Amino acid sequence: MSDTSQTKVTLLAGGVGGAKMAEGLAALPDVALSVIGNVADDDSFHGLWVSPDIDTLTYSLADVIDRQQGWGVADEGHRALETLKTLGADTWMSLGDRDFGLHIYRTQRRLKGDRPSDITRDVVRAFGVSAEILLPTDDQVQTRVRTDAGWLSFQEYFVRERCAPDVRELSFDGITQAKPTPEALAAITSADLIVIAPSNPLVSIAPILSIPGIGEAVQSARAPKVAVSPFIAGKVVKGPADRMMAALGERADAVGVAQRYRDVVDALFIDHVDAALAPEIQTTGPTPICSAILMRDLKDKTRTAREIVDFHHDHARKGAAA
Amino acid sequence: MSDTSQTKVTLLAGGVGGAKMAEGLAALPDVALSVIGNVADDDSFHGLWVSPDIDTLTYSLADVIDRQQGWGVADEGHRALETLKTLGADTWMSLGDRDFGLHIYRTQRRLKGDRPSDITRDVVRAFGVSAEILLPTDDQVQTRVRTDAGWLSFQEYFVRERCAPDVRELSFDGITQAKPTPEALAAITSADLIVIAPSNPLVSIAPILSIPGIGEAVQSARAPKVAVSPFIAGKVVKGPADRMMAALGERADAVGVAQRYRDVVDALFIDHVDAALAPEIQTTGPTPICSAILMRDLKDKTRTAREIVDFHHDHARKGAAA
Repeated sequence: MSDTSQTKVTLLAGGVGGAKMAEGLAALPDVALSVIGNVADDDSFHGLWVSPDIDTLTYSLADVIDRQQGWGVADEGHRALETLKTLGADTWMSLGDRDFGLHIYRTQRRLKGDRPSDITRDVVRAFGVSAEILLPTDDQVQTRVRTDAGWLSFQEYFVRERCAPDVRELSFDGITQAKPTPEALAAITSADLIVIAPSNPLVSIAPILSIPGIGEAVQSARAPKVAVSPFIAGKVVKGPADRMMAALGERADAVGVAQRYRDVVDALFIDHVDAALAPEIQTTGPTPICSAILMRDLKDKTRTAREIVDFHHDHARKGAAA
Repeated sequence: MSDTSQTKVTLLAGGVGGAKMAEGLAALPDVALSVIGNVADDDSFHGLWVSPDIDTLTYSLADVIDRQQGWGVADEGHRALETLKTLGADTWMSLGDRDFGLHIYRTQRRLKGDRPSDITRDVVRAFGVSAEILLPTDDQVQTRVRTDAGWLSFQEYFVRERCAPDVRELSFDGITQAKPTPEALAAITSADLIVIAPSNPLVSIAPILSIPGIGEAVQSARAPKVAVSPFIAGKVVKGPADRMMAALGERADAVGVAQRYRDVVDALFIDHVDAALAPEIQTTGPTPICSAILMRDLKDKTRTAREIVDFHHDHARKGAAA
């Protein structure tokens, strides 16, 4: 633990699932939260730079998220997109008017040469979010998805094709040349606890951990590391992780998650319904912790976050006593 | 007259006043209308290229204009601007969400290197407008307004300062290097009738006529040329033309307009209430034509347009008979 009264938690998070975990942790008064988000599903639409995962984190933590959808802004309109449709533009990517304001702002600052991390910091502050949202890299990394119809950008696969095609291969273009941001490295190094959110391991967490320097920093960090399984009874709450894991020959359950994170985390939170998988997870590497990990509302999110942070405290005490 | 049954009318027009005249002419079934608009009040906001006069023409001719304001789109929202305000951006320029869609589209195509005239043609077609809207130049020309507080961009003077400061001097940055578009020159050369709309002579019409080659083409065109006075009884219907003319030492009435256009037009339409100015206008140069030139609704606009086109026909017949 740090010498302050707060526990410094660094969360690695994707979009919707990551944002739920971030909200739970942000609600704990004894936690100082830094979230390292995923930029590999960023894309350009109509000449504007769109960061879906980072924006979902921002909108969620600012409590302006559309709670029905889990993404986008509440009280949203689609007038700008209607004009773009009139003008013959491709409008399968649903971008709302409030959302467009942010994309316009970000694009203008990027074109001015401002560092993406600095832009994100200013956006997060302007939205009144007290947690930090950090980019793992300021360089461009882009998830590409190979299907039987060829390579697609992540948003083409996810939004335009609604995850219908089978995934044959994933690639993170630009990742080997990407440099980690000093902010992300510092948040990992100085953390009291590192948490991997119940996000898609393949397309949300992998493109964070695979940035040269980030995965290594997590592995060598002094903090205990825990992950929360995105799988409950072999299903994910949202998104294509189950089908994607299966299609790529990985186990689509909490054991598959343990295999993915075996070299990274000390413990894996799984749901009570998956208790039978605990021995196999233990054998794989991480210590399984059975809990109630389904997060439907803020109460669920806060309870899950509380258990993770308390587990860490117990762990730290046991470590000190040993 | 051209050999078709339609009269080819080329209108030089600014924003709101110009759009009214354009609507009237577009409503006449025997007129093929080309409008040459003003690009000198174009400006960049939030990194997006905004063309207020061209868009007012497009929105008016597409009948999607906000009829209360005379500019902007009907059924408009301001959510994107609200986000930009949250993010600390300057938001004195009122840009609606539907409007943003157009600015996003135009900016993306400009950044791709597309010719502004081509972009405008595609926008006009997409909005279902059958008249042509032509740019006088594809180069950047920017009206600058000197006030006692220094030089302002036109939109700073017009929107942010609401035309409050006295105008000491006008400048059209970039105009001496600007090249006329072939489309504008062709529309002037091939016209059966050239009309100057009741727009601000100083900041709407001057930055069109002063583009090298445009004023000369109008002067040497075979078509008769008429202007419609923006002044009725020494007042303008909308905008700062009266105060601006006076501040710059010009007469703020139909005679001032006649002086401005003496080398350009054959006739000047003035309102019946200004009949007493007719002799002085005649001495100045253009033939004064007394008419009802106030355009409140489409009936007014169409009637004024009809009189202008009929005057031309009478004139052409008299010319042929002489």
